[in-house]
Amino acid sequence: MMKAWRVNAYKQPLSYEDVPKPDITEPTDVIVKVGGAGVCRTDLNLINGVWAETLQTPLPFTIGHENAGWVHKIGPSVTSFKVGDPVIVHPVKSCGKCLSCRSGEDMHCENLVFPGLTTDGGYAEYLKTAERSLIKLENGVQPQDVAPLADAGITAYRAVKKAAPFAKPGTKVLMIGMGGLGHIAVQLMREFGNADIIALDKNRERLDMALEYGADESVEAKEGFISEVLALSENEGVETIIDLVGQTQMHADSMKMLKKGGSYFVIGYGGELRVPSLDIVNNEYNIIGNLVGNYTEFYELMKLHAKGKVQLHSTTYPMKDANKVLQLLDDGKINGRAVLVP
Amino acid sequence: MMKAWRVNAYKQPLSYEDVPKPDITEPTDVIVKVGGAGVCRTDLNLINGVWAETLQTPLPFTIGHENAGWVHKIGPSVTSFKVGDPVIVHPVKSCGKCLSCRSGEDMHCENLVFPGLTTDGGYAEYLKTAERSLIKLENGVQPQDVAPLADAGITAYRAVKKAAPFAKPGTKVLMIGMGGLGHIAVQLMREFGNADIIALDKNRERLDMALEYGADESVEAKEGFISEVLALSENEGVETIIDLVGQTQMHADSMKMLKKGGSYFVIGYGGELRVPSLDIVNNEYNIIGNLVGNYTEFYELMKLHAKGKVQLHSTTYPMKDANKVLQLLDDGKINGRAVLVP
Amino acid sequence: MMKAWRVNAYKQPLSYEDVPKPDITEPTDVIVKVGGAGVCRTDLNLINGVWAETLQTPLPFTIGHENAGWVHKIGPSVTSFKVGDPVIVHPVKSCGKCLSCRSGEDMHCENLVFPGLTTDGGYAEYLKTAERSLIKLENGVQPQDVAPLADAGITAYRAVKKAAPFAKPGTKVLMIGMGGLGHIAVQLMREFGNADIIALDKNRERLDMALEYGADESVEAKEGFISEVLALSENEGVETIIDLVGQTQMHADSMKMLKKGGSYFVIGYGGELRVPSLDIVNNEYNIIGNLVGNYTEFYELMKLHAKGKVQLHSTTYPMKDANKVLQLLDDGKINGRAVLVP
Amino acid sequence: MMKAWRVNAYKQPLSYEDVPKPDITEPTDVIVKVGGAGVCRTDLNLINGVWAETLQTPLPFTIGHENAGWVHKIGPSVTSFKVGDPVIVHPVKSCGKCLSCRSGEDMHCENLVFPGLTTDGGYAEYLKTAERSLIKLENGVQPQDVAPLADAGITAYRAVKKAAPFAKPGTKVLMIGMGGLGHIAVQLMREFGNADIIALDKNRERLDMALEYGADESVEAKEGFISEVLALSENEGVETIIDLVGQTQMHADSMKMLKKGGSYFVIGYGGELRVPSLDIVNNEYNIIGNLVGNYTEFYELMKLHAKGKVQLHSTTYPMKDANKVLQLLDDGKINGRAVLVP
Repeated sequence: MMKAWRVNAYKQPLSYEDVPKPDITEPTDVIVKVGGAGVCRTDLNLINGVWAETLQTPLPFTIGHENAGWVHKIGPSVTSFKVGDPVIVHPVKSCGKCLSCRSGEDMHCENLVFPGLTTDGGYAEYLKTAERSLIKLENGVQPQDVAPLADAGITAYRAVKKAAPFAKPGTKVLMIGMGGLGHIAVQLMREFGNADIIALDKNRERLDMALEYGADESVEAKEGFISEVLALSENEGVETIIDLVGQTQMHADSMKMLKKGGSYFVIGYGGELRVPSLDIVNNEYNIIGNLVGNYTEFYELMKLHAKGKVQLHSTTYPMKDANKVLQLLDDGKINGRAVLVP
Repeated sequence: MMKAWRVNAYKQPLSYEDVPKPDITEPTDVIVKVGGAGVCRTDLNLINGVWAETLQTPLPFTIGHENAGWVHKIGPSVTSFKVGDPVIVHPVKSCGKCLSCRSGEDMHCENLVFPGLTTDGGYAEYLKTAERSLIKLENGVQPQDVAPLADAGITAYRAVKKAAPFAKPGTKVLMIGMGGLGHIAVQLMREFGNADIIALDKNRERLDMALEYGADESVEAKEGFISEVLALSENEGVETIIDLVGQTQMHADSMKMLKKGGSYFVIGYGGELRVPSLDIVNNEYNIIGNLVGNYTEFYELMKLHAKGKVQLHSTTYPMKDANKVLQLLDDGKINGRAVLVP
Repeated sequence: MMKAWRVNAYKQPLSYEDVPKPDITEPTDVIVKVGGAGVCRTDLNLINGVWAETLQTPLPFTIGHENAGWVHKIGPSVTSFKVGDPVIVHPVKSCGKCLSCRSGEDMHCENLVFPGLTTDGGYAEYLKTAERSLIKLENGVQPQDVAPLADAGITAYRAVKKAAPFAKPGTKVLMIGMGGLGHIAVQLMREFGNADIIALDKNRERLDMALEYGADESVEAKEGFISEVLALSENEGVETIIDLVGQTQMHADSMKMLKKGGSYFVIGYGGELRVPSLDIVNNEYNIIGNLVGNYTEFYELMKLHAKGKVQLHSTTYPMKDANKVLQLLDDGKINGRAVLVP
Repeated sequence: MMKAWRVNAYKQPLSYEDVPKPDITEPTDVIVKVGGAGVCRTDLNLINGVWAETLQTPLPFTIGHENAGWVHKIGPSVTSFKVGDPVIVHPVKSCGKCLSCRSGEDMHCENLVFPGLTTDGGYAEYLKTAERSLIKLENGVQPQDVAPLADAGITAYRAVKKAAPFAKPGTKVLMIGMGGLGHIAVQLMREFGNADIIALDKNRERLDMALEYGADESVEAKEGFISEVLALSENEGVETIIDLVGQTQMHADSMKMLKKGGSYFVIGYGGELRVPSLDIVNNEYNIIGNLVGNYTEFYELMKLHAKGKVQLHSTTYPMKDANKVLQLLDDGKINGRAVLVP
C-alpha cells in the first residue's frame, strides 16, 4: 500500500488515503518512485470539475501530472532504463502505433492515457507510466528540482517554439501571466525569439522576476493596462501574444492589443473567446491553441535546462500538505511553481 | 464626366450619377477603363454600413473592388504598361516602401488605399489605380471574363494555399459555402490539397457544381448536416475547415465538426466566433483569418487560370443594373459571380 | 526451408538457394509471406558492390527491399495485424525509441535494420519484418500490384512533397528519368505541385507515358537537350529539378539548367556532384538529398493510391527469373517497375 | 570631382583617382556621402578577376559594396529621406517591380544593380544608390561604426536565420571561419539558434573572440581538427555547418563532419564542392547556398544591433590606405572587419 491524494468527488478537498501500489501489467510499463510532483492550475480545475465532462474520468482517482523520480520497477520489454535511474516523466502515455504517434505528436495519440487526468497520477509515492514517457536525468540533477518541467515546462516550450518565428527583431511579444508557466515561457522566448518582450501580470514581484529572466518591459495588469501596452507598441498593438491566463476578459482585451496580422497563442484556459469574424478576417489574425509538448520537445527542453538556459523558480512542500498548497495556488500566493515531495 | 454608382448614405440603394473622370495625380498612377466589375458580398456589407466604423470612409464614394479593363492613361514613371493593355487590377494600392510591402504583403501595407472601400472604385467607366496593382492579361483573355479573380479569386487562393499543407492525403477538408468564392476555392483545393473535399451549401445546384469542380462529397446545409459531416469523417470531425460564410451559427457549428488538432480558416465574416478556451487548448485548434491575396499570389492565380485549372462561373449584367444585381445577390439568386459591364 | 535469391559475392549473379524460413525472435516481429517483390536499381548497385563499403553487410544475404504480401506469423506483442492480413511493407525496421523515430523520421533511426540491404530481404518466399513497418491493404488490393509503392513509391513521394512548395504556378519543374520512380514522381508532382512539368528521358516511350501521367512538356535526353530545356524556361533555367538518375554528367548538366534561386532534388545516385561554391552562393542554390519516405508518408501515399491518383506501371515476373529481370533492368528494357512473384 | 579607388585592370592594385561625382538621373536616386566603406574578401576576389566572367562588368569601375554615410542629394520622388540623414546602404539597387522584388527577395531582382560589383561603389567620397536601399540610422549611431552590417552583417544574418531552425537544443552547429562574417554570425547564432556552437578557425585569437561572443567550443583548424570536431559530436558529426570559408578542401572536410540528415550552409566561396551523390542521398544532406540578405532582413539586423545583441569588431583606416588594407586582409591580418573612412 502507499499514500495518495484522491479525488473522491468534485468540488471537495482531496483526500489522503492508503491505496494499493501500482504494478506492472504491460511489458512496457515502468513504475516510478515519485521524487517530486508539481502543483498545477489544472489540478485546481480538475478538482473543481472543469474537466469532468470533457474527460469522463471515473472517480476516485489520484491527481498529479507533473512528475519526476526514480525507476522502481520495469516491464519485461523495457530496454532503455534500469531500476534506480533518475527520470522525469512525460505527462502522457502514448501508444506509439497510431499516426499521431508515428509523426511525433504524442499529445494527439488516439489511445492517450493521461495519468493524473484520466487515470492515477503522481500525488502519491509511486506512479505507473511507460518506457516511452521517460527521459533520464543528467548526473547530479534531483527529480524534485525539475518536476515542473514535465508539464509547465513543455507546455511553455511548445507554445514559445511555435510563436518564435513570429517574434522577429523589431516586433513586440506580449506575455500574459508570469506564474508557473509564465516565468519559464519568458526565458524560453528570450532564447527562441528576437522580439521585445512585454510581461503582463497583476503582481509586481512576478514582473520583476520576469524582467530578470529576460523581459524588456513590464506592465501591471491594472486599470489602463491596455493603453500602456499600446503605448509600448506605437499604438498599433503587438505582433504576438502568449496568453497563459485564458480568462474571458483577458481574451477580449488581447484582441484589443493585437496588431493587424498578429498571432494570439492561447495556453491558459477557462474563459470564452468571443471575436467578430470581421476582425479575424480584416486583421488576418491567427488564433493558435497550444497543448503540452511532445516527447522530442521535452528532450529539447531538458537539454536547454542542462545548459542553464532555463531556471525554475520553485518551492518544495511535503506531499502531505497538498491541500494547503492547492489553496495557496488558488489564492495567488505561489510564485513560480510548487512541488510536492513524498 | 462619367457614370458611376455612388454610396451617398448607408442602408440606401446606390445612386447612378455623373461624376468627374479620375485623372493622373501621382507619377505611378494608372487610369483603367473598366471592362468588368465583379459584384461581391462585401459590396452589400459596405452599403449596409458594416464597414463604416472600421474604415471611416468619407461619403459619397463609388464602390467596386473587383476590376479588370484596359489601360487608359499612365503616369510619367509607369514603365511596365502602355495605353490599351488589357489588365486585371489588384484590389489595393500599396505603397511599396513600408516593411509589409517590402516583404510582399500588400494587404498589410501601412499606407493602404482600397478603391471601392476607402476611395472610389470600379462600378464606373474609369478607375484610378497604380502600376503596382496591375497584371497584364494573356492574349485573348477578356477583362469581363476574369474580373472576379481580382478579389474572389485571390481571396480563395490565399486561404487555400495556407490551408493546403494541412489537407494531406487521408484527411478531410470541409468547404462551407459554394458561391462566388466557394466555387473557385474548391477548384484550388483540388489543385493544391490532397484531402477528400466535402462541400457544404444550402443549395443543391451549387453542390452539384462543386462536385463537378472536384469535391468528393457534398452535404446540404439543412437540419442534421453536422451529423452528416461527422459520419463522413469517422465521427472525429474533419482536419480542416474553410469557412466562406462566416455567420455566428456557422462558426459555432464549425467548432463541432473540427477534429482534435484541426485548423479553421475564416474567410467569410459577419458573425461572432465564440469558443471556450478549454476547447481551443485541449483540441489544439488553429483559427486562421484570411484576407485578400497579395500581388505574387495574384500572379500565381492568373498563371493557374491561364493553364485552365480554374474556371469561373460568372454572368455578366449591364453596369446600369447594379442595384438589381445586388438585390439578386442578397436573395441568394446569383450562382458563381456576377460581373457588371459598362 | 524456402527458396531465396542470395548475394554470395559481389559482381556475381544472384544464386537461387534453399535457406531456412525466417522465424519470430522479437515480440514485435512479423513474418510476411511475400506476394510481390519489386526490382530496383539499388538491387543492381548492391550486387555490384556499390553499397559494400557504406553498409558492411556480411555475405551471404537475400536482397529485395520493396515488398508486399500476407501476414504469416506474428510476435506476441503485435496487436494491429492478424495472420492472413494483406500488407505492404515499409522497407526498414526502425526502433521506435530513438529521437529520430520519436519525431517520425524512420529512415534516420539510430538502430535501423534494412531488410534487403543490411539483412535478408524479400526476393524469397518469406520475409521477416516488424509491426511498425506494416500497412494493411485496402479491400481488393493485391500485394503484387502495389509492391513498388513500398520503395519507389515512397522515395518519389518524399522528394516530391519536399519539392512541391517550390513548384509554384508560373514556374517550371524538370523531372529527370521517367523509369520506375519517375513515372510515379510525375503523377505525384501533378497532384502536389502547380508548376509546368518538363519530363526528360532518353526513351521516347517513357516520355509519352509521362505526358499521359501529367507532364506538360517532354524533352529527349540527346544532344542539345540542355538548350531545349532552357528554351522552355525563358533561357533562365527551371526553378526546380528532380533528378532520379544521379550520374556525374547529369549532375553537371543540371547545374546548367537550374535558375538563380533554384532547388535541385537528388534522388538517383551513383555519380559525383561537382560545383564551384561561387555558383552555389551567387545563385543561392539549394541541393537537397532525398531518402526513402517515412511511415506517415507511406500511409499518405497508400491513401492517394486508393483514390486512384497514382497509377503503377508494372509487370510481374516469376520469382525464379530474378536474374533475367535484373539483366533487363540493367539494359534499360524495363518500363515502369518489374515485380517478382513467388 | 571626387577621389575614388578604381579597378582599371584585373590582378592589378586599385588606382586612387579623381572621377566625377555621381549625380541624380532617376527620380528615386539618392547620392550618399560615404561615412564608412567596409573591406570585404569579395573585394579581393573582384580585383583578382574571380567575378569577371560571371558579372561582365565594364572596366574601369569603383569597388566597395558595404557602405554607410549621410544623404547628400535626393531624386524628386524620394519621400522617406532628407538631405543630412545618416543612413546605411543595402548593397544592391532592386527594381521593386519584378516578382522577386514583389516577394521581398531583393537579391534575386531581375534588374539588379550592384554598386561595387556591377557599377561604381563606395570606395569613394560619394555613392549613388536608391531610396529602396536605405535604412535610417538610429540617433547617435555613426556610419563608420555600422558599415560592415551592410554586407557582412546581412549575409551572416540571412544564413543564420535559415540555419537556425536546424540548430535545435541538443544538436551541434559548426561555424567555420571567425573573420569578418564569422564573428557576426556566431553572435547571431547565439540569438537565433539553440544548438551548441563549435567555432573553427586557424587563428587562436579569433577563436577566443568567438568564445566571448557565444561559441560553446573552439577548434583550431590544424592537423587533426576533423577528429576533434567528431569527438565533440559523439563521433556522428554535427547537424549543421555554416561554412564562411568556402575552399575546396574545407568543402570536402565539411562532408566528413556532417551528421546523417545534416545541413551544410555555404556562404564563403572560391573552391569546388565535390561529393558523391550516394552520400547526398544516403545521408539525406541539404546543401544550401546563401546570398546577401534582403531589405527586411537588413531592417531586422539593424534592430538587433540597436538592442546591443550584435557587436562589430572593426578597425577604421583612412580611405587613402585602401590598397594597404586589402593587403592586410589578404595576409589574414585583419580581425573582424576593416572600414575605410574618407
